[in-house]
Amino acid sequence: MASVLRSSTKLRAAARAPAVRAFSTTARLRAAEKPFFPNEPSAPSVQTAIPGPKNKAAAAELDEVFDVRSLNMLTDYTRSVGNYIADLDGNKLLDVYAQIASIPVGYNNPHLEQVAQSPEMLNALINRPALGNFPSADWANILKTGALKAAPKGLNQVFTAMAGSDANETAYKAAFMYYRQMQRGGHEIEFTEEELLSTMDNQVPGSPQLSILSFKSAFHGRLFGSLSTTRSKAIHKIDIPAFDWPQAPFPALKYPLEEHVHENAAEEKRCLDEVERLIKEFHNPVAAVVVEPIQSEGGDNHASPAFFQGLREITKRTNVLFIVDEVQTGIGATGKFWAHDHWNLQTPPDMVTFSKKAQTAGYYYGNPALRPNKPYRQFNTWMGDPARALIYRGIVEEVERLGLVEHTRITGDYLYAGLERLAQKYPGHFQNLRGKGQGTFIAWDTPKRDEFVAKAKSVGINIGGSGVAAIRLRPMLVFQKHHADILLESIEKIIKLL
Amino acid sequence: MASVLRSSTKLRAAARAPAVRAFSTTARLRAAEKPFFPNEPSAPSVQTAIPGPKNKAAAAELDEVFDVRSLNMLTDYTRSVGNYIADLDGNKLLDVYAQIASIPVGYNNPHLEQVAQSPEMLNALINRPALGNFPSADWANILKTGALKAAPKGLNQVFTAMAGSDANETAYKAAFMYYRQMQRGGHEIEFTEEELLSTMDNQVPGSPQLSILSFKSAFHGRLFGSLSTTRSKAIHKIDIPAFDWPQAPFPALKYPLEEHVHENAAEEKRCLDEVERLIKEFHNPVAAVVVEPIQSEGGDNHASPAFFQGLREITKRTNVLFIVDEVQTGIGATGKFWAHDHWNLQTPPDMVTFSKKAQTAGYYYGNPALRPNKPYRQFNTWMGDPARALIYRGIVEEVERLGLVEHTRITGDYLYAGLERLAQKYPGHFQNLRGKGQGTFIAWDTPKRDEFVAKAKSVGINIGGSGVAAIRLRPMLVFQKHHADILLESIEKIIKLL
Repeated sequence: MASVLRSSTKLRAAARAPAVRAFSTTARLRAAEKPFFPNEPSAPSVQTAIPGPKNKAAAAELDEVFDVRSLNMLTDYTRSVGNYIADLDGNKLLDVYAQIASIPVGYNNPHLEQVAQSPEMLNALINRPALGNFPSADWANILKTGALKAAPKGLNQVFTAMAGSDANETAYKAAFMYYRQMQRGGHEIEFTEEELLSTMDNQVPGSPQLSILSFKSAFHGRLFGSLSTTRSKAIHKIDIPAFDWPQAPFPALKYPLEEHVHENAAEEKRCLDEVERLIKEFHNPVAAVVVEPIQSEGGDNHASPAFFQGLREITKRTNVLFIVDEVQTGIGATGKFWAHDHWNLQTPPDMVTFSKKAQTAGYYYGNPALRPNKPYRQFNTWMGDPARALIYRGIVEEVERLGLVEHTRITGDYLYAGLERLAQKYPGHFQNLRGKGQGTFIAWDTPKRDEFVAKAKSVGINIGGSGVAAIRLRPMLVFQKHHADILLESIEKIIKLL
Repeated sequence: MASVLRSSTKLRAAARAPAVRAFSTTARLRAAEKPFFPNEPSAPSVQTAIPGPKNKAAAAELDEVFDVRSLNMLTDYTRSVGNYIADLDGNKLLDVYAQIASIPVGYNNPHLEQVAQSPEMLNALINRPALGNFPSADWANILKTGALKAAPKGLNQVFTAMAGSDANETAYKAAFMYYRQMQRGGHEIEFTEEELLSTMDNQVPGSPQLSILSFKSAFHGRLFGSLSTTRSKAIHKIDIPAFDWPQAPFPALKYPLEEHVHENAAEEKRCLDEVERLIKEFHNPVAAVVVEPIQSEGGDNHASPAFFQGLREITKRTNVLFIVDEVQTGIGATGKFWAHDHWNLQTPPDMVTFSKKAQTAGYYYGNPALRPNKPYRQFNTWMGDPARALIYRGIVEEVERLGLVEHTRITGDYLYAGLERLAQKYPGHFQNLRGKGQGTFIAWDTPKRDEFVAKAKSVGINIGGSGVAAIRLRPMLVFQKHHADILLESIEKIIKLL
């Protein structure tokens, strides 16, 4: 324990003094930085081994009724603040994992506190509507000033959902209905008797054997339809029946990008060709292509804007819908509000799904024909949660007020530069550093990944992995340069512990 | 408009005077009844045609960004109270549909108001955890004093979810993992290389062609797995790919039950035999049977306790899991907290799913082997919402404090007796009255069902249908005898308008 305490003392000292010399060129900027959370700790503080005794006792109690084998750390949210997460044993860690990339504006954000205490919130919490049937009088206003204020360019309508999985699945349903409508020859063509009867028995033609094309290593959720498009890890999928849907290769880029320009372009072309071939040849016709702007759970795999422009072009040309899954990339973390804003598409995606940092979920769309031709085809009792829609509105307000998208772009560049220096210093621990120009959405591969993640807590950092070898950074949008300094310094400490 | 106002005046007069003579025997009881909501209107009040001008304008505004074709009525929740729902035009309707059976303890319930303003709620709203990784320190306590305090007998563990569809789908996933574990010969047997590889391509053996058996007319949700078990209406399913899973017939009982005892028993036996045959013969082996205690969306179809005892017996004997979907029937509406409490099973169901009146969702289970053999197999980022879990706890407290389960049993009997009298008086409008002894979970068939539902608003009643010809009553648990009187009187008025 003594050594842990020493390490904590050192951390505090480090936060007061200028950071390691390598970062001194930006020290002036950093010093001028006004903290978003004046009540944040100045540095992590590690008081016990993690998990500490109180955490262990509480975990055992929870285990009686709730599976805790995926438990990372029982959390004292009342004592967490801004970028710092507190556990039950008095430890406060700098959190660059942020509830699997889902906390946007810091723990105990004062503006969200106001939203949570507003009369609208009280109303939404205790009078939960069936939104498709009995929306509240202010539902249009909540959407227009919240979710839709943040809508991707060209997409002015929204279907609200609960979480990433059902956001994607309802988007897939919209795609299948649209595809069949095109096949029938229009909106107004009635279903045949055979379709109406066969669908009750889950058989063609009423339940058609259509497909959604996704990519190797993709993650789109874990319910039956979304899981059929998820190709991240076997443990996510094994033993669960799946639809016979196609997967295309996702580009395996080589880093640094500037040294592999032609090779990477050829790799992206190979993947695009395979997408087109599958659309044309796969035995279960493809109604839509779904893709993450950066494959997140699958290991932080990037592709170039040209690749995504190519996908948009192929899907347009082959009359297949183009769904962009921004569940993890959306809401600012890449230095644009939507990661696909980096692509400069000529026509927007057909649907964009969101969740995580929105604290609610759904899909945006623009084409009115994506509303099914009859009511009650895309419907469920709750269709989202107005309480969470109010939080999303509060997040959009906070992002605007503090300029958090631009802020994250700048902080991301600063952090990336620091990581590049570390990568030069410790090449054995840094492979394929990626996410340059993508805000704080940064990752690298490291041979002792699981050990790295585990050791991080002992130096006061809560950090996550993805794929088989990646460390993924998912700080909040309120992550600042002084946090970046602490993180960079801590990464060096972790490396020395390995 | 004048006639609408007249009707409203009459309603108010009726509420002051004893109700129609037929109900006078219980007038004394009714008079002694203390209202749960002292600030409720004494009767519905209809000021305009419905939808009124403000509703129409607001609907047009909402339509710009949100599909409103399933819109029933834009609602002013701030002016709704107890059993009364208010629209934007000053109309207040007695609500016996209750957001598709999902409001348990009345609009603007004062106890839920306290819960919504508690420090725990503030914390849950603004610091949303990834519950599988970073549950809050008090998560075990919230579950034990809330969701699990209400757990069905014999089921002491819970997996938390967001809504009915994913509650069912995660239960199905648990069933598939359990089934394959049995096939492998135990918890500790590792996956084969072939399984691990094939599942990444959605192919057997890793993605097995197993099935969930459901019943004709069943409704279990609308995502891809749950929709594959839903067999309510073609409009719910058409154009959406589905798994090749079996459906058994659900008993088509004849009413009144006491006049068709032998016939109904034979019908139930026929259905049970078919369940057993499908379990033994269906080409995609059955991992679980899922059933609603009362098929709700499918038309309020009942079966006897003997039928469900038979299902439990068959599933036990054939080593198939038995999942009871209590999404619509749970939390008191049938006069028991869980509808399956009516069955007196010797061993509990393997899993019971819940949502709607719980205002959150999930599945209960008891057998520890239903926890998959490795972590992260049953997992997602949020795994529910602590804010909604706190509301569920508040609901459980309110149900206990007011004795709402017993109350609903008694009110249901009272209401059912009144409906029996109406059925005798208007036999052409009442067929197959059902739900006797099932609290207020009552329905009947009527030839002009859609007209009945539409006209109901003009006499101040918000009511719903199910299946092809049923009126389903889904009042809240705070529905009292004086509300029943108003409802019975109003039903008579509606019939006269048809």
